[in-house]
Amino acid sequence: MPSALAKSPLLLACRNLPVPRMPVWFMRQAGRSLPEYRAMRGSGSILDAIARPEIACEATLQPVRRYGVDAAILFSDIVVPVHAIGFGVDVVQGRGPVVESPFRTTADLTRLRDLETTDIEHVIETCRMVTSELEGTGTPLIGFAGAPFTVASYLVEGGPTRTFHLVKALAHREPALFEALCDRLADMAIAFTSAQVAAGASAIQLFDSWAGALTAMEYEQFALPSTRRVMAALEPLGVPRILYGLGTGELLSLMATSGADVIGVDWHVPIDAARTRVGALAVQGNLDPALCVLDRDVALAATRDVLARSGDRPGHIFNLGHGVLPMSDPGILADVVSVVHDEGRAGVETPS
Amino acid sequence: MPSALAKSPLLLACRNLPVPRMPVWFMRQAGRSLPEYRAMRGSGSILDAIARPEIACEATLQPVRRYGVDAAILFSDIVVPVHAIGFGVDVVQGRGPVVESPFRTTADLTRLRDLETTDIEHVIETCRMVTSELEGTGTPLIGFAGAPFTVASYLVEGGPTRTFHLVKALAHREPALFEALCDRLADMAIAFTSAQVAAGASAIQLFDSWAGALTAMEYEQFALPSTRRVMAALEPLGVPRILYGLGTGELLSLMATSGADVIGVDWHVPIDAARTRVGALAVQGNLDPALCVLDRDVALAATRDVLARSGDRPGHIFNLGHGVLPMSDPGILADVVSVVHDEGRAGVETPS
Repeated sequence: MPSALAKSPLLLACRNLPVPRMPVWFMRQAGRSLPEYRAMRGSGSILDAIARPEIACEATLQPVRRYGVDAAILFSDIVVPVHAIGFGVDVVQGRGPVVESPFRTTADLTRLRDLETTDIEHVIETCRMVTSELEGTGTPLIGFAGAPFTVASYLVEGGPTRTFHLVKALAHREPALFEALCDRLADMAIAFTSAQVAAGASAIQLFDSWAGALTAMEYEQFALPSTRRVMAALEPLGVPRILYGLGTGELLSLMATSGADVIGVDWHVPIDAARTRVGALAVQGNLDPALCVLDRDVALAATRDVLARSGDRPGHIFNLGHGVLPMSDPGILADVVSVVHDEGRAGVETPS
Repeated sequence: MPSALAKSPLLLACRNLPVPRMPVWFMRQAGRSLPEYRAMRGSGSILDAIARPEIACEATLQPVRRYGVDAAILFSDIVVPVHAIGFGVDVVQGRGPVVESPFRTTADLTRLRDLETTDIEHVIETCRMVTSELEGTGTPLIGFAGAPFTVASYLVEGGPTRTFHLVKALAHREPALFEALCDRLADMAIAFTSAQVAAGASAIQLFDSWAGALTAMEYEQFALPSTRRVMAALEPLGVPRILYGLGTGELLSLMATSGADVIGVDWHVPIDAARTRVGALAVQGNLDPALCVLDRDVALAATRDVLARSGDRPGHIFNLGHGVLPMSDPGILADVVSVVHDEGRAGVETPS
């Protein structure tokens, strides 16, 4: 680890170690919620912006400059790897990832070839540019990938869904096929995140955003095994691994067995209760993003409530419980960062 | 209670009493998922169909005939009362309730006048027609209303939302105004459901469908007080009161303090775990509706899993964990009913 990162509050907190200040960053801190991003990008698919390293690097760095957060997160999307191998995915503005020809049968497995380094040169280049810009600042870059279940849900449903009935039916009806699909996606997530680490990322977050659609029994059968494979493959790289999902209150104790070092928690479970559920692991969260849109006082009161529940114990990375909402007020988010830095006590070393 | 209803499995189970067979019905069993309904109704707002008692009565009875479920539920919508007093709401097909001029300030309270019997003559007439048709069959009619928080979320957001940021901001920023709003909506829910009971309904379900958007702390402050008012006002009527919300795993123990007799549970919490959380109250649920769309074997295996977790203890009404999905296969749902009736053991009296 470059020496400036040795004191990174984020990287220390991931390991449950004492920190110089409580770390904070925001899921989806880069991109659509920032006026400087909207001014830069114009219209078109986000995949085009991601494919241009100078744009993606700038988008990654904008929130670091604006908010003074304790980590940059790669400006990317969980469908980038499947898009890169030509599965036929686009991200439609205001809707999300849309799949031209959804995954339905065993024959579709052949459409999921290995992810090669040459498929993601642009992402690797972005990571190199970002970490070069951040060098010496002590701010790490978090790389990321979608967890197999969540990516599978897009491939099977053909787009965003509120019901998940196609992916659930496939998983229950053809568990061996679903496992094969998730294994392919696990391999791609491993290749994708390993490449990011090789290009300078100091931590990895696996987004199993839609795992909360599953019961604990389903999660254990359909999502956890491939998640464990990803976590195990990343272990030798020596970077902290964060696992996040929305609406996973019933799943937290299972997620804690995935091999992740940090469990992301949404706002439905108070952070102290979440710590009980995940045991010794570090936690990340869990301010409600909906409270950061309209009212500064409401946002800061909620921030202080999270901090109070968190207390002194090390191993808490402050974050939202889900991504920054597009209509969020960046000024409010900046004030949230200040309050966490000024008042957060989780693992903060007191001068002796 | 008319004598034929004295042995209603649903009404007995609501009271934790032994039942001749395990009761089952489905939220949203009436309406869009049934071909006979689609054939009858054609296009146009659902509010127009609800306003015609002969249509609404027929829609209410269709699933009772088709499935042999243990209850009819009034074909209606949670926005019917606010629509009836002229707040300016419509239900847009494929989208949901849309409010012309959302609730934003104290001045908007004056737009919420008392609900008078004359506003809902059509609903009262539907209840009379349905209960007259059901007379002697032993099948009760469940009346319903939206819980104040959930109706308030539509009025404040102006339509369906995934973020709830407007209603949360209003509740946090102006708690007295939000309380006044929920009190008005509680009065309307009381008037609406009382009229249904007077016209023959034998049980009431309060849909707090979106309560799961709230943390436990928020639920206790913003949703529970008005829900308690409704439950308390209905107590003298002597009909069982069911309280349902989606994604309420963290809220079940609070919901159990609302005065409800039965707590509805979605599929995220296994029904045995849910019983632990709600204590002595009866429970309703909790088959995942997504599993009833495509595959009979999957649906029946999941049904049997719920039944196994439920066991022998009285006080379980079988249902889905959320409404029937529009694309559900009615044949699968019919088979679910058969399995529950044939194999369900919760509170079922064994011939001595």
